[in-house]
Amino acid sequence: MENMIEQHAELKEIKGGSVGSPKGFITGGQNIGMRKSKPDMGWIFSQKPAAAAGVYTTNRFQAAPLSVTKASIAEEQTLQAILVNTVSANSCTGEQGLENAYTTRKWMADHLGIPEHVVAVASTGVIGLQLPMDKMRKGIENISLSGSDALFEQAILTTDTKAKHLAVQCVIDGKTVTIGGACKGSGMIHPNMATMLGFVTTDAAVDPADLKTALKTVTDRTFNRITVDGDTSTNDMVLVMANGMAENKRLTVKHPDWPIFLSGLKAVCQGLAKYIAGDGEGATKLIEVRVSGARDEKSAEAISKTIVGSSLVKTAVFGSDANWGRIICAIGYSGEPFDLEKVSLTLGEIVMFEHGMPVSFNEEEAKSYLDGNNIVIKANLGEGDGEAVAWGCDLTYNYVKINASYRS
Amino acid sequence: MENMIEQHAELKEIKGGSVGSPKGFITGGQNIGMRKSKPDMGWIFSQKPAAAAGVYTTNRFQAAPLSVTKASIAEEQTLQAILVNTVSANSCTGEQGLENAYTTRKWMADHLGIPEHVVAVASTGVIGLQLPMDKMRKGIENISLSGSDALFEQAILTTDTKAKHLAVQCVIDGKTVTIGGACKGSGMIHPNMATMLGFVTTDAAVDPADLKTALKTVTDRTFNRITVDGDTSTNDMVLVMANGMAENKRLTVKHPDWPIFLSGLKAVCQGLAKYIAGDGEGATKLIEVRVSGARDEKSAEAISKTIVGSSLVKTAVFGSDANWGRIICAIGYSGEPFDLEKVSLTLGEIVMFEHGMPVSFNEEEAKSYLDGNNIVIKANLGEGDGEAVAWGCDLTYNYVKINASYRS
Repeated sequence: MENMIEQHAELKEIKGGSVGSPKGFITGGQNIGMRKSKPDMGWIFSQKPAAAAGVYTTNRFQAAPLSVTKASIAEEQTLQAILVNTVSANSCTGEQGLENAYTTRKWMADHLGIPEHVVAVASTGVIGLQLPMDKMRKGIENISLSGSDALFEQAILTTDTKAKHLAVQCVIDGKTVTIGGACKGSGMIHPNMATMLGFVTTDAAVDPADLKTALKTVTDRTFNRITVDGDTSTNDMVLVMANGMAENKRLTVKHPDWPIFLSGLKAVCQGLAKYIAGDGEGATKLIEVRVSGARDEKSAEAISKTIVGSSLVKTAVFGSDANWGRIICAIGYSGEPFDLEKVSLTLGEIVMFEHGMPVSFNEEEAKSYLDGNNIVIKANLGEGDGEAVAWGCDLTYNYVKINASYRS
Repeated sequence: MENMIEQHAELKEIKGGSVGSPKGFITGGQNIGMRKSKPDMGWIFSQKPAAAAGVYTTNRFQAAPLSVTKASIAEEQTLQAILVNTVSANSCTGEQGLENAYTTRKWMADHLGIPEHVVAVASTGVIGLQLPMDKMRKGIENISLSGSDALFEQAILTTDTKAKHLAVQCVIDGKTVTIGGACKGSGMIHPNMATMLGFVTTDAAVDPADLKTALKTVTDRTFNRITVDGDTSTNDMVLVMANGMAENKRLTVKHPDWPIFLSGLKAVCQGLAKYIAGDGEGATKLIEVRVSGARDEKSAEAISKTIVGSSLVKTAVFGSDANWGRIICAIGYSGEPFDLEKVSLTLGEIVMFEHGMPVSFNEEEAKSYLDGNNIVIKANLGEGDGEAVAWGCDLTYNYVKINASYRS
């Protein structure tokens, strides 16, 4: 999947970059016996305390690790370490689960010799399963600070088929600043914040309050624009740590280079989000829906998400069937106002619908386009200036297979 | 699929009953060459003009036949005939499509010797395809009034695997009243009114205004409580015709037997709705979600529909996996307020979750229950008196197969 990074003159992609690319970040992963041999515990450590912010699932029920991480960040908007485990989501685990999350945070802090409130914890896996505390304790004791991004990336995956990571560089105050990220997420992916964990690191110095705003803004246009199956999980979050080791003058929204930093952060989050959408459970194709000409951005967003979330659009893309009627139909039930006479639809560069009527197109050409693995659907509503992009994936036999037997 | 009819002391099910069961209704179907050999045009004719009402898709874009049918009913709240075709949905067909729908209405009226405004038209099939007017004309000329319910039931089906029909009888004013129905719908089924056509007939005499209210009330609790894939189509409607040939005193909401009529209408609509859910594209199981203890009925309805619409719940049921975490998760993203500590979950009679925590249950017993084809999930929120039931089906390999290649 090429071109994951938005082209931007001021940004340079680091080939193979990840959460460990920015200065001062050490990451790793290990198998602590919760699953066969793949790493199931991962960590990120910053040599210096880092300004930190998080965004969290909108599911009304939030898992224990989210409460603990929120409490950590609330204290000083600072993190120095993140501990992640797979297999157990530590969700629907009651008082015991919350206590366990706090205990693992304490063990991690003690092991690294840092305060508890600069440690975040994250879990993903089966709901209703308590953390195996013996294994967690031994695992934490075993953490060494000679890490490996590859092990971290593996440790956070569940049904994902691929590790997901990238990094970009930009220049701020004449200093090279690096922004890296890694994430997991495959099923239960839906706005906002579905079973998805995202970790972004940077060596930039950033004001914590502005970092929080930036993360929220960027997340709304990247991670919150992807959908795999419409289910929103109890465990999702995106965390960002900025440790300042690039030695730039601290970034705030007033800093002249703020827009460069923001575009770097967006490029990383968008790249990660697209990796997740393209690696949706059972997916064979990444679907990008670009809506323009809507009344406003909110309306464009609602329509783009509705199209990319439609089971019928997703199966048609899987079957390489240029069934534009399903796209029109999805626009119709998005709840947004529109005038069919003004709508135009394009599949790649092939016009399918204009002025309220189908346009005859070459079916073979459309099929051949849909046989690719990067499908772009464009809808122009002809109403206004609102634009939005959303990403998703096709719905396949393997989605059903994976989810019919996830626990077994 | 047994027990489709709600048990009710005053109602008697007619074995094999259908739209032709009430007095004075003649129905039929024929192949007019739009598809290989299965009937693709169907009709209902009432010997006397009948009080009529309809409910229509909530999709902002509505197909041409809906406009025409609405115009017919608006005139006098009366219908005497309904013409249905499959293959072409006559949707996204512009001015030409609308003109064609009016033309077929006129041909039907002329052929039967009745006014145009007592004829309704309905279409289902592919979006963007014009009606084949030559075939439609010849088909209409060929309609004879010695019909067959079985041919009508077949003529309206698309990807449905089974004909869907039933009828009940009740006594009103000492007269035997029959209410019958037939419907189609398999994919694109979602509240409200997805690719679904429902036709209900009765020989009761009913006030048209009250008939309309009754249909709306009943539809909201039956047809609008089913979901197959979350897509809402442009063509759906439910029509009811009441021709008065049972010779009861005209029913109004003030008639002492009104509740009996209402329960009969509900039994028919609920039975048809459950047939549709159970015959969802690729479905192997009917899922019934009963929510109780919600703040109010609206909240219960939203939660029940969210659970039954969750792709992850649907795949888990397909895989006979008692993954209650996905049900909790769906409640969490339904948008409705709830307190996890008060929630209890039951699968059939097996308690899975209580007081915010999982209850240990016999996995074998749960699997064996889920291997059945009538799955009942009960959620009690412990908040109030709100109750609602929603129906859906499992998500299977065959759903993907059917929808990856519908047009081809």
